[in-house]
Amino acid sequence: MNNDKIKIGLFGFGTVGQSLFTVVKQARNAHAEIRRIAVRDKSKPRKVNADPTLFTENSSDLLDDPEISLIVEVIDDADASWHIVSEALRRRKAVVSGNKAMIASHLPELIELQRQYGAALLYDASSCGSIPVIRNLEEYYDNDLLLEVKGILNGSSNYILSRVFDHGEDYDSALRRAQELGFAESDPSNDISGRDSLYKLIIITMHALGVYVPPKEIFTYGIASIHDSDIRYAREKGYKIKLVAQVVKVSDDRFTMFVMPEFVDKSKYIYSVDDEYNGVVIRGECYDRQFMFGKGAGGLPTASSILSDIMARRYDYRYEYKKTGFHGRPEYTTGVPLRVYVRYAHTDIPSILPFIEIRETYMSAEYRYIIGDIMLSDLIGCRTQLTAPDVFICNFSTFFADCDN
Amino acid sequence: MNNDKIKIGLFGFGTVGQSLFTVVKQARNAHAEIRRIAVRDKSKPRKVNADPTLFTENSSDLLDDPEISLIVEVIDDADASWHIVSEALRRRKAVVSGNKAMIASHLPELIELQRQYGAALLYDASSCGSIPVIRNLEEYYDNDLLLEVKGILNGSSNYILSRVFDHGEDYDSALRRAQELGFAESDPSNDISGRDSLYKLIIITMHALGVYVPPKEIFTYGIASIHDSDIRYAREKGYKIKLVAQVVKVSDDRFTMFVMPEFVDKSKYIYSVDDEYNGVVIRGECYDRQFMFGKGAGGLPTASSILSDIMARRYDYRYEYKKTGFHGRPEYTTGVPLRVYVRYAHTDIPSILPFIEIRETYMSAEYRYIIGDIMLSDLIGCRTQLTAPDVFICNFSTFFADCDN
Repeated sequence: MNNDKIKIGLFGFGTVGQSLFTVVKQARNAHAEIRRIAVRDKSKPRKVNADPTLFTENSSDLLDDPEISLIVEVIDDADASWHIVSEALRRRKAVVSGNKAMIASHLPELIELQRQYGAALLYDASSCGSIPVIRNLEEYYDNDLLLEVKGILNGSSNYILSRVFDHGEDYDSALRRAQELGFAESDPSNDISGRDSLYKLIIITMHALGVYVPPKEIFTYGIASIHDSDIRYAREKGYKIKLVAQVVKVSDDRFTMFVMPEFVDKSKYIYSVDDEYNGVVIRGECYDRQFMFGKGAGGLPTASSILSDIMARRYDYRYEYKKTGFHGRPEYTTGVPLRVYVRYAHTDIPSILPFIEIRETYMSAEYRYIIGDIMLSDLIGCRTQLTAPDVFICNFSTFFADCDN
Repeated sequence: MNNDKIKIGLFGFGTVGQSLFTVVKQARNAHAEIRRIAVRDKSKPRKVNADPTLFTENSSDLLDDPEISLIVEVIDDADASWHIVSEALRRRKAVVSGNKAMIASHLPELIELQRQYGAALLYDASSCGSIPVIRNLEEYYDNDLLLEVKGILNGSSNYILSRVFDHGEDYDSALRRAQELGFAESDPSNDISGRDSLYKLIIITMHALGVYVPPKEIFTYGIASIHDSDIRYAREKGYKIKLVAQVVKVSDDRFTMFVMPEFVDKSKYIYSVDDEYNGVVIRGECYDRQFMFGKGAGGLPTASSILSDIMARRYDYRYEYKKTGFHGRPEYTTGVPLRVYVRYAHTDIPSILPFIEIRETYMSAEYRYIIGDIMLSDLIGCRTQLTAPDVFICNFSTFFADCDN
């Protein structure tokens, strides 16, 4: 153990940065000190008061400081984040990052940089806010028994669905409320489109199965086009609609992954994951299903997770990416059938989507829907057409016989 | 990382031992091999077939074997377990143990042995079966933010309560069923009396707060004397009765802990922890409440947890007992008021228990109850009288204003 205080260079002083500043100050046994804070605009007023001499607009003031051994990066911009994090690793500084977009896009390069320069990058805060999913997948579910990781990974969209679904609010006012409460970013498009969940799923998959799949190869469908008729349909059948990310072994040597709204019934653990909470189900051969549940959005939960990563550095903790070296790692496939509900109005879904089998059709003056079985690869092939504003797709989880929780 | 196969000496070949044997064989990437198995009686017939030459009745065949670097101990007998584990550590062999009674009773000596001989002891399987509570407390909730750990830690008693409570079975047939399913030991008294939960709570408290409290100093009350009238009372008020273990910070520098039946309402996470499942709520200053849920009883879930400990040894993982070195560790206190329901018949509870305030009393021809506030220390003082078969005590969690989930 290193008993010296860890001297931190902090990039970003938004909601998470300010919360972290407060938490580090409070934690008597953290042995950590924020030495410099890099921001884009020093003069911007902020809620949390910090010594003004801590601030700089020049990233070199942090990266060049030999006293700073740990860079904590909590900025919004993925390109700037990549620049900072990769540069810090090259200078053999340890890094804690919460930028899932950057990490999901650059994971192979980040692993290589860590190996090349012997510097550690931790990012437990990047997935599921305060729930320690990454570390548990890396350290505890570190064997061949893992079959599935599935969950609600985005607090903002779940908050919105919860307001719309359980409290009868309309979509726009739910979104505004999420923004007021600080769950949704000023630009919430990543939350709503499922991209935020996708990034987290990519990171989770690396630590769950040791395989990297780039964002563009994964079917990702959000909740932007959800409509009263979908909510009514779900209610009538006893479902809630949740935005679900999942990675599932479909056989001994293949797995699939996607992000999609899903009809969830009462018997499922994630049914009761409401508001800004996240919930993850980890399924394995011997332990069956385990469920982890906690706050997935907000400054303080994320800050507490970053604090755990900071403290892990006192013990030189690093991800070993153990599973990348496993024998018989499964291969990614999109050649799996799904059962989906597709609601539409004027878009000609029946001629666009090559259903294997149509199970139900419905038609009214306002809208139509089809419930049918379709290959995931075909959904990917048609994804541009599926973004039409009159179209909404929702998955029936029960179609994977074994993966129904 | 150590790429050689870990050679294991296994003590015990009951339900867990046999499950572990099967799981280790299946796990392609475990790099582990069970080299010898010590049992009390080699000739005893067993469900799982293992090469007969693996078995021995002589523990030295394992402890003296220089090829065996890891002892896995899954026997029932706490005294024998202490002998084996302490001897193995002295010989600088790493140990994985699932014996909570032994660990809870000898924790300070076990920590000292590990320090003295540089050998590691892992025991994640000892608490909550397959849920990685210990490791998460040690590695992730490793800061000053932790306020409370509370949960259902015993799968057998929870199974029985679930059958009695949710399915209307009578107590004796529920207990028999638990034994048939392998959740309850042939002697289930530790499960029913709360002692099994107590042992787990002691281990959890060491990793949660860095403080050891010996079993005899902790109030522990089980479910042996639960009666139809208690179940009826709970149902009428919308509660379930759960056997709950908890460690709670009651101020900055003090904490309390106890095991007791508790009235749990629908809004609590542990309300929906049924059957043989375990569920743990971890509450902290920034992340609020996190909930972990999984199978707490049964051979395979426990075996998968032991496999995780075995694999962690490939990376030389050990518990650091970080929090034992923390500044301002809180002190254990029993000087806290609780609100309890005490049902009784002929035992003279009103003159035995020094209530601070009595809130309700009830009396019928068959039984009586008192709901009142009482100091935990006074409950400890009267614990012998409270074991009378006509007495049952149940805690109202809401009395700790801040600790109500």
